[in-house]
Amino acid sequence: MEQDKFDILNDIEYPDDLRRLSVEQLPQVCDELRYDILKELSVNPGHLASSLGTVELTVALHYVFNTPEDRLVWDVGHQAYGHKILTGRKERFCTNRKLHGIMPFPSPKESEYDSFVCGHTSNSISAALGMAVAAKKTGNKDRHVVAIIGDGSMSGGLAFEGLNNVSTTPNDMLIILNDNNMSIDRSVGGMKQYLLKLNTNETYNRLRFKASRWLYRNGYLNDNRRKGIIRLSNAVKSAISQQQNIFEGMNIRYFGPFDGHNVTELVRLLRQLKDMKGPKLLHLHTIKGHGYEPAEKSATLWHAPGKFDVDTGKRLVTESDNKPPKYQDVFGETLLELAKANPKIVGVTPAMPTGCSMNIMMNEMPDRTFDVGIAEGHAVTFSAGMAKDGLLPFCNIYSAFSQRAYDNIIHDVAILNLPVVICLDRAGLVGEDGATHHGAFDMAALRPIPNLTISSPMDEHELRRLMFTAQLPGKGAFVIRYPRGCGVKTDWRCPLEEIETGRGRKLKDGKDIAVLSIGPCGNDVGCAIAEIEKENPGMSVAHYDMRFLKPLDEDILRETGEHFGRIVTVEDGTRNGGLGTAVTEWMNDNGYSPRITRMGLPDRFVEHGTVEELRHLTGIDKDGIKRVFAEALCSAGNGKDIQ
Amino acid sequence: MEQDKFDILNDIEYPDDLRRLSVEQLPQVCDELRYDILKELSVNPGHLASSLGTVELTVALHYVFNTPEDRLVWDVGHQAYGHKILTGRKERFCTNRKLHGIMPFPSPKESEYDSFVCGHTSNSISAALGMAVAAKKTGNKDRHVVAIIGDGSMSGGLAFEGLNNVSTTPNDMLIILNDNNMSIDRSVGGMKQYLLKLNTNETYNRLRFKASRWLYRNGYLNDNRRKGIIRLSNAVKSAISQQQNIFEGMNIRYFGPFDGHNVTELVRLLRQLKDMKGPKLLHLHTIKGHGYEPAEKSATLWHAPGKFDVDTGKRLVTESDNKPPKYQDVFGETLLELAKANPKIVGVTPAMPTGCSMNIMMNEMPDRTFDVGIAEGHAVTFSAGMAKDGLLPFCNIYSAFSQRAYDNIIHDVAILNLPVVICLDRAGLVGEDGATHHGAFDMAALRPIPNLTISSPMDEHELRRLMFTAQLPGKGAFVIRYPRGCGVKTDWRCPLEEIETGRGRKLKDGKDIAVLSIGPCGNDVGCAIAEIEKENPGMSVAHYDMRFLKPLDEDILRETGEHFGRIVTVEDGTRNGGLGTAVTEWMNDNGYSPRITRMGLPDRFVEHGTVEELRHLTGIDKDGIKRVFAEALCSAGNGKDIQ
Repeated sequence: MEQDKFDILNDIEYPDDLRRLSVEQLPQVCDELRYDILKELSVNPGHLASSLGTVELTVALHYVFNTPEDRLVWDVGHQAYGHKILTGRKERFCTNRKLHGIMPFPSPKESEYDSFVCGHTSNSISAALGMAVAAKKTGNKDRHVVAIIGDGSMSGGLAFEGLNNVSTTPNDMLIILNDNNMSIDRSVGGMKQYLLKLNTNETYNRLRFKASRWLYRNGYLNDNRRKGIIRLSNAVKSAISQQQNIFEGMNIRYFGPFDGHNVTELVRLLRQLKDMKGPKLLHLHTIKGHGYEPAEKSATLWHAPGKFDVDTGKRLVTESDNKPPKYQDVFGETLLELAKANPKIVGVTPAMPTGCSMNIMMNEMPDRTFDVGIAEGHAVTFSAGMAKDGLLPFCNIYSAFSQRAYDNIIHDVAILNLPVVICLDRAGLVGEDGATHHGAFDMAALRPIPNLTISSPMDEHELRRLMFTAQLPGKGAFVIRYPRGCGVKTDWRCPLEEIETGRGRKLKDGKDIAVLSIGPCGNDVGCAIAEIEKENPGMSVAHYDMRFLKPLDEDILRETGEHFGRIVTVEDGTRNGGLGTAVTEWMNDNGYSPRITRMGLPDRFVEHGTVEELRHLTGIDKDGIKRVFAEALCSAGNGKDIQ
Repeated sequence: MEQDKFDILNDIEYPDDLRRLSVEQLPQVCDELRYDILKELSVNPGHLASSLGTVELTVALHYVFNTPEDRLVWDVGHQAYGHKILTGRKERFCTNRKLHGIMPFPSPKESEYDSFVCGHTSNSISAALGMAVAAKKTGNKDRHVVAIIGDGSMSGGLAFEGLNNVSTTPNDMLIILNDNNMSIDRSVGGMKQYLLKLNTNETYNRLRFKASRWLYRNGYLNDNRRKGIIRLSNAVKSAISQQQNIFEGMNIRYFGPFDGHNVTELVRLLRQLKDMKGPKLLHLHTIKGHGYEPAEKSATLWHAPGKFDVDTGKRLVTESDNKPPKYQDVFGETLLELAKANPKIVGVTPAMPTGCSMNIMMNEMPDRTFDVGIAEGHAVTFSAGMAKDGLLPFCNIYSAFSQRAYDNIIHDVAILNLPVVICLDRAGLVGEDGATHHGAFDMAALRPIPNLTISSPMDEHELRRLMFTAQLPGKGAFVIRYPRGCGVKTDWRCPLEEIETGRGRKLKDGKDIAVLSIGPCGNDVGCAIAEIEKENPGMSVAHYDMRFLKPLDEDILRETGEHFGRIVTVEDGTRNGGLGTAVTEWMNDNGYSPRITRMGLPDRFVEHGTVEELRHLTGIDKDGIKRVFAEALCSAGNGKDIQ
């Protein structure tokens, strides 16, 4: 293909345009679509490798199915950039993941072609089954429903629960298993191995499928006869097979595996399966990053590569030597350091060894680190089992995904107060991944749970200290939440020291307002205080880094309750239920009545954009904090004009 | 067996005593143990049928394994009464489920023989895997770890996540699949069907097992040779089978199915499997209620039958005609009534059709009700899929189990504000099932989630009105939480009327204190007010039933903020994060500073006992409320002595 020429793609705005083409033109559509994704992502970073791997599937699906009337339910939107470009968002695709631009993951809020929310994995089968049932019950009998799920997502328990029900709830849905042997990192677990074994049965399955196709083409497959054929097929299979394919065993017809990059073959397959009654699963093999050699070679690196040069495959990493490291790297390095000193420590990650930097420990101590696949619930309960019998697990989960492990934290960790260190990475606003990915709810959701210690470091030094503290004897269940991305310290490798549980620290004295913050927004508080004091001589604002949401530092609370009429709390979790709430409760319970301004995330789902943009939008950046100071000082009758 | 004679059981205090017996004596032990359970439960109600079904397995496990050094990890403690009796709790078994008596489900807090918490299902494989890993890493290389999981629990995604990891994490654990084709109700789903199909392979599997046993007995099975045998076995299997048993496909050796009620055979099986390396699964068939005909015939009814006459099998149901119905029945009847009028309504329950009384609708409208098995996450996401495409699901989940669906509520329901009516049954204190089962966290956990409407009815009329309201157009995601057990109205079938969203009601005027309550504890508030006013003439307490935790009725808040210096909030969820917190936040945000006393569940896991005992213990019964009134009136300087 001559690059930068989009001879066919230029004329495709919507799937209707695609469906007017001949099958023979589809390979070129795929080439152009792939190059369009590449070109765009090279300058506007996003999820590259997954979407390259589904180009042919996307084209074939929209070609064969009558979207949006037919429902395509993607599982995680990583893979759906081609889908976006083909469904009316080609021009706006350059705004992908940007503030007010198109959303990072498909959403019905944005397009009728997006059937469901798909930020978290493994929900597609359950949601699609709901849609298939609804289609039958609302008189949309001709609607087809297709769930597209990766093999990584299949390790999530929710996907299994969905499968388990697909087989017994009457429906005609099609599940497409997009098997590339990858999550973001390489897939793990028994299901992966099971799928690998299915490959060895290719010949048998192809034969079955060809037979069925032949019968269909020749008009033998009306409904009654098809049932007969299926019965016959099953009988034959039983005769030659004592065992059952798991999908077939669950009454889901299985077809595959087939090559997911042969678009004309995919069209033929999908046409055959489209009107087949009952639930069925089409197993496709794809290559993550397909069609772009650098991404094929190193799919984890190219999952979300940042900017790059399309021609050379050189990633334009802009990190300078003087930039502070990411919290993730501080976590990873510190975990290894601690594990070297404490043989009880083990690491657990649900499919995010690279994302959370546990791979640093994994490389040196492979037998003390466990990538359990996309399985947050298991990650926590497995950790609890290890903790029960003498180990000290650091279980690292992205805050938003830890919502999947809420019951496990309560039931399997907190009731026995087991020494599991639950590290919630990507807490607070995460930026471009948007509403589904912000770590907004963790503090509010975990605070009511008895026995938990809940902490959040203001910077990398504090992260190291909290990690050190958490692994000391007798600490019990210990939560440490910290954000995505870079911290503030270039000299991050400070000595490891214990922090007394529930002990905050006074960072600055003051007389007009007391600010109680938790987590890294304390740094913005510091800047805001410096500026407002400079701009308003004579004013002074006290600042306390609470460090712990639970237990609270009651000495600090007493001190501020006694000496301040105005208190401002700042956090990067939901305004309702977190630190500000805890402080307000405490002041009321203990007979203090300062006016408290609680700053945090609002009671709505926060959109996507850069972290800075979103902090500004939600008012928890330096300017927002200064604004609150100004209001507070005014209403406190300070008598001066606040600048 | 001559009943009431426990010739052998009398001499068994601990498994060591059991292990001194000959294998030939074990059938009698089983008979005596079974009768002991029956006799005890006939007067002290508990979970009968599950425990009857595992008598032989329990005896065989403790006979073969070196408990407590070896770990038995039960999945849900329903089945573990025999285990309790054999592990030092025979004498105290008569205190089972009673306040300060032995705990309803096994817990390491109570006995070293209880390896892990097992109140919620499906966690045993993950926890046991953690223990198996810990055993290796802490130098307990000879420790055996056994997970015992029912087929119902296998429908939970967590169990699948566990299985998926068992196969790839080096371990020697044994999983016992106790397959009785039941949860509390009959098992559903593809896995169940899959297991049924495995039965047809019995001959094949028996052959394999016998061959392996013969080889073992004859000393052929040292480690190297065993590997060879396994390879050979797999090769042979591949030759005759194109497909794979799911467990074997996941590298978990599969043995079964076998009769789970033949104790001597079980001992032989377990001895064979005990020292086999690598993960393995033993599939047993048992009958829920085995050995007691009434329970065998009707296992759902006899899951927890209440008191009964052992000889006649007559259940001693004590309900009188004048007693108010259970909330569950009001839910069930009202759902049917609404569904008859609104064709969009469908019902979804994760394995609790009887428990939540959705079976009332299920009987009349089988095609509009869905029992999805033990799969709370799927229940919510499946409901969301249906709601997205035009249906109106009532998804009923026990409050404590809804913790499993926390992410699904956020990600799949709330983001799109889909019209799913999430009915949280057994909210608040549930009584004898104890810490794992109280619905304590729902309000605090759900309140920070945007878009949700969260309500709780004070009585059955209000439940009906809220259910009617929730299904009206435009209401979006709507949570209704209500308790286990009987309400207060015998004439419960009131007209169905809309309640304005976020609108509470004033139940009583007053001047000294304003009480804001949510849910059925409002009835205790009413009694407490009546008594304290009678005892202290001239005093008056106002009472508002808030009905909604979210959105709050700001008119009521403004009225009480303006007119009352003392406010008391009462709820049966955690004191931190629920209604009291929301009221405190609002008062502070809006410049009011009444003293607020928040009454709710304390920041610790509440034990088991009757609901009345536990309400008393946690201070949220009538007397506790009166006590708070008295304190409030005193501190308000009312000047009178409060009686």
